[in-house]
Amino acid sequence: MSRYWSSLVHRLTPYIPGEQPKLSGLVKLNTNENPYPPSPRVVAAIDAELRNAGELLRLYPDPAAERLREAVATRFADFGITREQVFVGNGSDEVLAHAFMALLRHELPILFPDISYSFYPVYCGLHDVAYATVPLDENFAIRIDDYAVPNGGIIFPNPNAPTGCLLPLSAIERLLLMHRQSVVVVDEAYVDFGGESALALVKEHPNLLVVRTLSKAHSLAGLRVGYAVGQSELVEALERVKNSFNSYPLDRLAIAGAVAAIGDQAYFDGTRHAVMRSRAALCDALRGLGFEVLPSFANFVFARHGQRDADALAAALRLRGIIVRHFKLPRIDQHLRITIGTDAQCGLLIDALREILA
Amino acid sequence: MSRYWSSLVHRLTPYIPGEQPKLSGLVKLNTNENPYPPSPRVVAAIDAELRNAGELLRLYPDPAAERLREAVATRFADFGITREQVFVGNGSDEVLAHAFMALLRHELPILFPDISYSFYPVYCGLHDVAYATVPLDENFAIRIDDYAVPNGGIIFPNPNAPTGCLLPLSAIERLLLMHRQSVVVVDEAYVDFGGESALALVKEHPNLLVVRTLSKAHSLAGLRVGYAVGQSELVEALERVKNSFNSYPLDRLAIAGAVAAIGDQAYFDGTRHAVMRSRAALCDALRGLGFEVLPSFANFVFARHGQRDADALAAALRLRGIIVRHFKLPRIDQHLRITIGTDAQCGLLIDALREILA
Repeated sequence: MSRYWSSLVHRLTPYIPGEQPKLSGLVKLNTNENPYPPSPRVVAAIDAELRNAGELLRLYPDPAAERLREAVATRFADFGITREQVFVGNGSDEVLAHAFMALLRHELPILFPDISYSFYPVYCGLHDVAYATVPLDENFAIRIDDYAVPNGGIIFPNPNAPTGCLLPLSAIERLLLMHRQSVVVVDEAYVDFGGESALALVKEHPNLLVVRTLSKAHSLAGLRVGYAVGQSELVEALERVKNSFNSYPLDRLAIAGAVAAIGDQAYFDGTRHAVMRSRAALCDALRGLGFEVLPSFANFVFARHGQRDADALAAALRLRGIIVRHFKLPRIDQHLRITIGTDAQCGLLIDALREILA
Repeated sequence: MSRYWSSLVHRLTPYIPGEQPKLSGLVKLNTNENPYPPSPRVVAAIDAELRNAGELLRLYPDPAAERLREAVATRFADFGITREQVFVGNGSDEVLAHAFMALLRHELPILFPDISYSFYPVYCGLHDVAYATVPLDENFAIRIDDYAVPNGGIIFPNPNAPTGCLLPLSAIERLLLMHRQSVVVVDEAYVDFGGESALALVKEHPNLLVVRTLSKAHSLAGLRVGYAVGQSELVEALERVKNSFNSYPLDRLAIAGAVAAIGDQAYFDGTRHAVMRSRAALCDALRGLGFEVLPSFANFVFARHGQRDADALAAALRLRGIIVRHFKLPRIDQHLRITIGTDAQCGLLIDALREILA
């Protein structure tokens, strides 16, 4: 508490990200990072940018990051996406923060699932956005009909986090048609691990904003790049907020690396499919140990063990050098969210669990 | 205009940064970049981080960027600065944006000079901060006594931009004592080119926040790193806003490069003194051509020619491949802001002006 703080600061309850341990040698299955390195082309592109460091790092980057917007548009040209429909930012968290301020702050409350990305209520606190949560059904699925109330906007991850459950595109389209007056933000951080992207719907739906990140399927959590795609009217609102906040959110190396990552579709497909194969094997192994595992379309699984307390399991894993995520929240405090590692890491996890459960 | 936009977006007037031309070969004296490359240690440090790309870029960075906070504290240990007194962000523009929300949003209007960094009123628009401007005196100097009114905070660059004029530390100390109830933000983007830093006052003044950037004297505009230093009560407010906005504002490469830049004091001193020597020569040459030049403590000069229209001069320079900044604003629409380039670039500027004025 301080006389120097704005009243807002006194009210804030900041987001707490998953631990980034200082210890090395841990099996880190707690923040949904990709177990594989980024495309070798990313390193080569950043290297090339660095070789020109005299002329480049001393100069501001392109404030509009046009190369990156172009790369995103090119990748999704099949959906008719153009450069004017792409907004880029310093990680999808920044893109989401701007979306709350630009497109979700209205008189009516926005809606999101009761179990979802726990940053959403934090953004609401920061940007003074009223909200109401809508309970997932008993299978942790989003029920579109439960959203049939007047609202200032709707946001959810698809697949949802931390459940991994996927909403089919037909359901999203129905939601868009039900709420033509509101912006529907589909947060596709995890969609490349088996989901179907709502980018296909951008062309027909002026109220759709799709938010994506390079942190997960592109293995670039350390580079901080995210983007949003929507019709240019929505993108213009995000641009206006961004240009009132920070002209140059993406540095030169991040732009170069992101462009290279998006251009290497073969590498991207290889690693995301490897993660999906490991996920199938991990789900089987966890079920074999007595876990209920929700069907996952993300690079993590959400599982509970009928007989053992989740918090105690997480602590026992930690003692064995394996960290997973446990949320002390209503309805899910007996679940663990476990990131898909390499097959070797998944094997270590299963061995440790077998020992703990013995 | 759009039904999807928040009312805020309709009201915003975004900041317009100086042009980043796509053409190469221009003599670029318009956005106050350093004419010298960053320290070779910056490139080496980023290279080392990249060599470990498998283990590093795929992983989130340290959300608190402790290495960088430590590097800043170590550099300013003589002033008694500790790590808890350092806040870091994605360029000082992001740091400033958070400061407006966290420390400058109160019932009373904040104060800043009528001629100053033109992003300040934009931040006020974004974060709903009331403000009043205080005219510089007839010599474009800040007069401390003109700020003796109730206020919600005070902010100014020192040296001021775009004038380059410096306020001595004794005046800043007097201002801090006059306004113990308000936060005074001193924006030191340009202080390393001949000013005296207010960091020396942090220890004694709980209401002082000093904001700095690596974009200018450290030649890292392309990397996007800035920081603020103040007593931990002020830093905590910034942390709360940052952790409600984006957990990881600095990517791994930016952290590594910034730490290396801050650690290379000898290189830093060499390049900033080179800029200061070039500035002295440029001021003499401009005066020789009939310009009035304000005494500058920054890496730019602010000059007007008694006989020639500033906008026409800027246009004539542009035709000759040289870009400088002209602000179409009251009181300064006959001035040009000219970044200090290398001696060769300054020479090209003077040759071009001689030709234009002939």
